[in-house]
Amino acid sequence: MKGVIHANADAQIVDITHDLPRQDVRTGAFWLREILPWYPPAVHCAVIDPGVGTDRDAIAIQAGEHVLVGPDNGLLLPVARELAGVNEPESVEDSQTLTESSLIAYSIQIDDPESTTFHGRDVFAPAAATIHEATVDNLGDLELLTPTESVVDLTFPKPTVQETKATGDVMVVDDFGNTITNIPGSWIEGVSALRVNGEQVPVADTYAGVATGVRLVTVGSHGNVELAVNQGRGDEAFGLEPGDGVHLER
Amino acid sequence: MKGVIHANADAQIVDITHDLPRQDVRTGAFWLREILPWYPPAVHCAVIDPGVGTDRDAIAIQAGEHVLVGPDNGLLLPVARELAGVNEPESVEDSQTLTESSLIAYSIQIDDPESTTFHGRDVFAPAAATIHEATVDNLGDLELLTPTESVVDLTFPKPTVQETKATGDVMVVDDFGNTITNIPGSWIEGVSALRVNGEQVPVADTYAGVATGVRLVTVGSHGNVELAVNQGRGDEAFGLEPGDGVHLER
Amino acid sequence: MKGVIHANADAQIVDITHDLPRQDVRTGAFWLREILPWYPPAVHCAVIDPGVGTDRDAIAIQAGEHVLVGPDNGLLLPVARELAGVNEPESVEDSQTLTESSLIAYSIQIDDPESTTFHGRDVFAPAAATIHEATVDNLGDLELLTPTESVVDLTFPKPTVQETKATGDVMVVDDFGNTITNIPGSWIEGVSALRVNGEQVPVADTYAGVATGVRLVTVGSHGNVELAVNQGRGDEAFGLEPGDGVHLER
Repeated sequence: MKGVIHANADAQIVDITHDLPRQDVRTGAFWLREILPWYPPAVHCAVIDPGVGTDRDAIAIQAGEHVLVGPDNGLLLPVARELAGVNEPESVEDSQTLTESSLIAYSIQIDDPESTTFHGRDVFAPAAATIHEATVDNLGDLELLTPTESVVDLTFPKPTVQETKATGDVMVVDDFGNTITNIPGSWIEGVSALRVNGEQVPVADTYAGVATGVRLVTVGSHGNVELAVNQGRGDEAFGLEPGDGVHLER
Repeated sequence: MKGVIHANADAQIVDITHDLPRQDVRTGAFWLREILPWYPPAVHCAVIDPGVGTDRDAIAIQAGEHVLVGPDNGLLLPVARELAGVNEPESVEDSQTLTESSLIAYSIQIDDPESTTFHGRDVFAPAAATIHEATVDNLGDLELLTPTESVVDLTFPKPTVQETKATGDVMVVDDFGNTITNIPGSWIEGVSALRVNGEQVPVADTYAGVATGVRLVTVGSHGNVELAVNQGRGDEAFGLEPGDGVHLER
Repeated sequence: MKGVIHANADAQIVDITHDLPRQDVRTGAFWLREILPWYPPAVHCAVIDPGVGTDRDAIAIQAGEHVLVGPDNGLLLPVARELAGVNEPESVEDSQTLTESSLIAYSIQIDDPESTTFHGRDVFAPAAATIHEATVDNLGDLELLTPTESVVDLTFPKPTVQETKATGDVMVVDDFGNTITNIPGSWIEGVSALRVNGEQVPVADTYAGVATGVRLVTVGSHGNVELAVNQGRGDEAFGLEPGDGVHLER
């Protein structure tokens, strides 16, 4: 993919990661939404694509000065909304993302690619290069792109937050083992300890706010409640993995 | 290596991978041949070097507008041929790569390097930087380089392809577990199922052409027959690893 | 972090590694000291930060034309000394690094960062970007930086080297399994075999100086005694890990 981009565009490539879980569109969508808003405007090419080679579309979405390029499987919508300041709908059924917002989506023409198994190389990288060369202001003029309002959306599970109880899900586990939930960090403000799935755990501002090896609840850099261990792995200590339910009582 | 290159050349470095199997020259040669033809002309520095510090040569090979830099152990010849449009010989014994082709090979002067164990840093990176600064048109003028016709070659095992049977080898397993053989994909064109080492397996154009977790035979992005699992690992499901034999019947 | 840097500076980012052991400041300090002297002058941002969010300082150290940015936990001092040509003190207690040397240290103002758990993104990357834009000659003018002489130091354990015996420690194990000690390579010059923790092992200039799979003692690219296996893992064959003692007799 890097070779194809360099062969077709005078672009600076920033390589973000190749270490996301394989085939996991939801996790990819979560991390894109966390990471890309910290970048300056750019063409962002992201490929988690279990449907490669099938009749799923390839799409580009313009969100402000950013353009997202990837498969039409929901991977790009959450970060596109974040970049454009559009609220996430309650569920995919309620999605009116494209009609109600400043997002503009395009279907990318897939023209007899060299392979059916590596569209990163054969569809997305060349499209990203073409879009980069055209610049974001001229997407409408590219033959490669056809405006569309029908793209696959993806939303994240919503937590249930009450006064003394909150129920949510593990969204992802990061590289350190920190276990990131969808419960907003504001819910634990001013709290010094919580029951996490029935067990008492201290709340701390920092990992080092508890002794080495001790479990804690904190607010992570994403703003959500995070279950962690000081200098250890929260996922192992709490016995949790992505998709598991998390019940907090304060 | 990156520091040495940046200290000695005004170059843009593209970092392709550090995740190839350790010490495995053949696998490195395979992936270089697959990957580098997608790049624009460049100085490509590749180091898989079990003989580091011994009297094995360091070489540079000019292949068209590309220059390859690395140890003289066969790593660079297959991709050099691919870049220059030279056919692979039947075997290393038949190799006349350099005499019959447009490839030009040079021995790199190894002048008392700082270490005997890290020629990536002490020999190959500085040579790549010097070559980059000189540009491909001036290789003959570099004191660092001495033309040579004696370089170590490497060829890949050839499959035996008959009308209804094909026997080959697993060349490599990719990061997803896809098991890549040396049997040409054209051999399975129009076929809907095959026996793979005796077991019936469907043929599909795409991974998603079978149900999740199901084995399939497909043509990979390299053009060869590939043994895979939809959203799973082909190597584990087929019980195969690089070097293993693969027998197909249609 | 890359996004924040690109959003705040016109910089070329060189991504060295994300694969160091988690939370291990000493190992990070070792590798920084080995790697950065091969780089041209630059702003080097390094984060191994078990105390993130606590009252530990964030610091920048000017060492010649280089600037190091990271947490004030010892990570940066060994490489700063190396870059400035300052000898390592016998121990942290003897450290007069900043008063006696050409190193200039600054405390980085931490101004209500967005998170308490990811100062790489919220403190160090923005500071590195600001410093890069200001250039090394103008650090004293930056409001962000306050000169300080009180920084946390870190020294490495010293070996005991006698005429026929040397005792040291495993400093780190590299990605190949090579087991790197703190015993200077000069101590094994001209020696053909050693007892390593009581067992006879050949000394060789190169990994391939012994048969495949055989253990050897060599001098690594860092100049220290290294315990290795030709095309294998020294750490496993010697049963050693970082911090273990190593006793050599010749």
